[in-house]
Amino acid sequence: MSLSGCDAERNPAMFDEFLSNSKSWLNGKGPSSGIVFSSRIRLARNLAAYPFVGRASFQQKNQILKKIQQAHAQIPLLSRALYLRMTEIEDVDKQFLLERHLVSREHLTSPRGRGLLVSRDEKIAVMINEEDHLRMQAVTSGFNLQECWELLNSIDDRFSKTVGYAFSPELGYLTACPTNVGTGLRGSCMLHLPALVLTKKINKILDLLTKISFTIRGLFGEGTQALGNFFQISNQVRLGLSEREIIENLTGVVNQVKSQEMDARRFLLRKYKLKMEDGVWRALGLLRNCRLVSTQESLEHLSMLSLGLDLGIIKDSHLCEKGKGRELLNNLFLSVHPAHLQKIEHKVLNEKERDSVRADVLRERLSPC
Amino acid sequence: MSLSGCDAERNPAMFDEFLSNSKSWLNGKGPSSGIVFSSRIRLARNLAAYPFVGRASFQQKNQILKKIQQAHAQIPLLSRALYLRMTEIEDVDKQFLLERHLVSREHLTSPRGRGLLVSRDEKIAVMINEEDHLRMQAVTSGFNLQECWELLNSIDDRFSKTVGYAFSPELGYLTACPTNVGTGLRGSCMLHLPALVLTKKINKILDLLTKISFTIRGLFGEGTQALGNFFQISNQVRLGLSEREIIENLTGVVNQVKSQEMDARRFLLRKYKLKMEDGVWRALGLLRNCRLVSTQESLEHLSMLSLGLDLGIIKDSHLCEKGKGRELLNNLFLSVHPAHLQKIEHKVLNEKERDSVRADVLRERLSPC
Repeated sequence: MSLSGCDAERNPAMFDEFLSNSKSWLNGKGPSSGIVFSSRIRLARNLAAYPFVGRASFQQKNQILKKIQQAHAQIPLLSRALYLRMTEIEDVDKQFLLERHLVSREHLTSPRGRGLLVSRDEKIAVMINEEDHLRMQAVTSGFNLQECWELLNSIDDRFSKTVGYAFSPELGYLTACPTNVGTGLRGSCMLHLPALVLTKKINKILDLLTKISFTIRGLFGEGTQALGNFFQISNQVRLGLSEREIIENLTGVVNQVKSQEMDARRFLLRKYKLKMEDGVWRALGLLRNCRLVSTQESLEHLSMLSLGLDLGIIKDSHLCEKGKGRELLNNLFLSVHPAHLQKIEHKVLNEKERDSVRADVLRERLSPC
Repeated sequence: MSLSGCDAERNPAMFDEFLSNSKSWLNGKGPSSGIVFSSRIRLARNLAAYPFVGRASFQQKNQILKKIQQAHAQIPLLSRALYLRMTEIEDVDKQFLLERHLVSREHLTSPRGRGLLVSRDEKIAVMINEEDHLRMQAVTSGFNLQECWELLNSIDDRFSKTVGYAFSPELGYLTACPTNVGTGLRGSCMLHLPALVLTKKINKILDLLTKISFTIRGLFGEGTQALGNFFQISNQVRLGLSEREIIENLTGVVNQVKSQEMDARRFLLRKYKLKMEDGVWRALGLLRNCRLVSTQESLEHLSMLSLGLDLGIIKDSHLCEKGKGRELLNNLFLSVHPAHLQKIEHKVLNEKERDSVRADVLRERLSPC
């Protein structure tokens, strides 16, 4: 891949850093991280001086890109960020960014005039010229929407001062799609709900959430299945609600789902202890021994291991060094995806080759210490 | 259990000896033992001085039992044999004998007036008053019908001299069922045919064998499914054929099936090497990690391990000490059955408990050295 960088950041090994285990949003140390994999907030913003992306010329988009490139260097949280133009990213790297939830699928499909900023810890990502001029996101480990908000708010303030937002005192921030007008804020939590799936309670809960205007997605956004028992719950943006209210509403709902999942886990442990132990250990046995495994199957087994770790059926020491079990699993939840495997192997792999490499990676990382 | 013994052989720990790993018919060292698990020959004989079992009184059956009890002590191969009256055996031990192929199901269901002789190495077993007065069997490791025949022939000669067989110079040995008249001999080989099952060629071959008058059974005789990919091939006894001809016919057919299985194994290894490796290692991973497992599932995985050992995918050293892999698996093929587990644990276990104990036994015996 080639990287178009600011400053001296033209580093082709940049994404290798992303693959390391040191990302704080993956370390599993956030609040309730046994159930809430990650929290995420995004803000949609537009520059007052330019038409919305859909109506902007290529030249105008380029000007926006340049403005953001200049502005970000002045923002402490983003000063060392990676700046990328989407046209300069190779296919496997685009897929890699998608698998790490750093870009939307839409942002990749027509890359012309589009860009991306990613902080080194991957906590902050800013899509430039996606649906809006700026789509800023912050992500944190566990159930921690507040930290996301604080991070984004500070960046938002700084951008606001230098680039000049489209803002109406009456409506709030103006956005390309009317549903985002107001705060331009959308919050989401990625929940790991294996016990609600095993006890077959999940569909009822998801139906209910949908009825009260929350959106449920899979591991990779709209239309993706609930791979690995992950469910992303997000609020539908509502005109007239403040940032605080939106975050509080989402927090309340996630707390309720979390509590249901905890009840279901306690029920399983009480009624089906041996069956749960069997399932968790089988998952470990399969991942430690398979020679071919699909993404979907590996996510199912990793989900069981993660549940096993939460329930105390397996301990960190069964997997790796003390205190690192959740971080290992969280990283594996990403590493089993196609682009990650190709980045790990540094070569293009077809599906069959990926199934084999995936098994090798899992076997190696999950081998007993 | 209680054992009614000859000499000083009233030993309640007798069946514990059967559970040890030292049985030569299970050591996997016989010819072609990667495919032919065991060879077996049985002879049906009747005492001239008594009516057939179906027509004999209880008193007469008792006299026959006594005659055989006295006679066997004079036969070198049987002098140290265990002598049992079927009425004195507890249910779990009956099931245990069945699982070890030392008695027929029929011999257990109405035990009155019936007995059993078993040599210490389990190579020879004599059912007394089953369908015929004597049903003698010899079993050896691998493809070795000749050794079975030599063992049985020597015992048969000795019994013949002391108990007086019902014999017609015209028809040969007289038996209760006309299909056994003549030699009273039936030979069988237990074949492990996973590759013919995986390549879906097995049914065609079994159909063909049936058409040319061979009988196919599962691991536990008529009506049992092909558990663990085991198929017992036996000849239909034919009036007019000599012992040598019967054994030669069976040998020829088993050789052909063996050769087909070898072809199928080569094909799988050539075309689906990684898939086979995956299957074998997954089987090992599951058996080493499960906490609950049924007989059927464990036999499936053991079958894969056995195939993996034959194909060189796993080595003895992955399972146990060098040169002992096949013996370990052969013993496990028996140990996973209900009565074996109860003998190992020295207590009565319900189905759920057995699934748990079975997993424990497999995990323990298959743990890496």
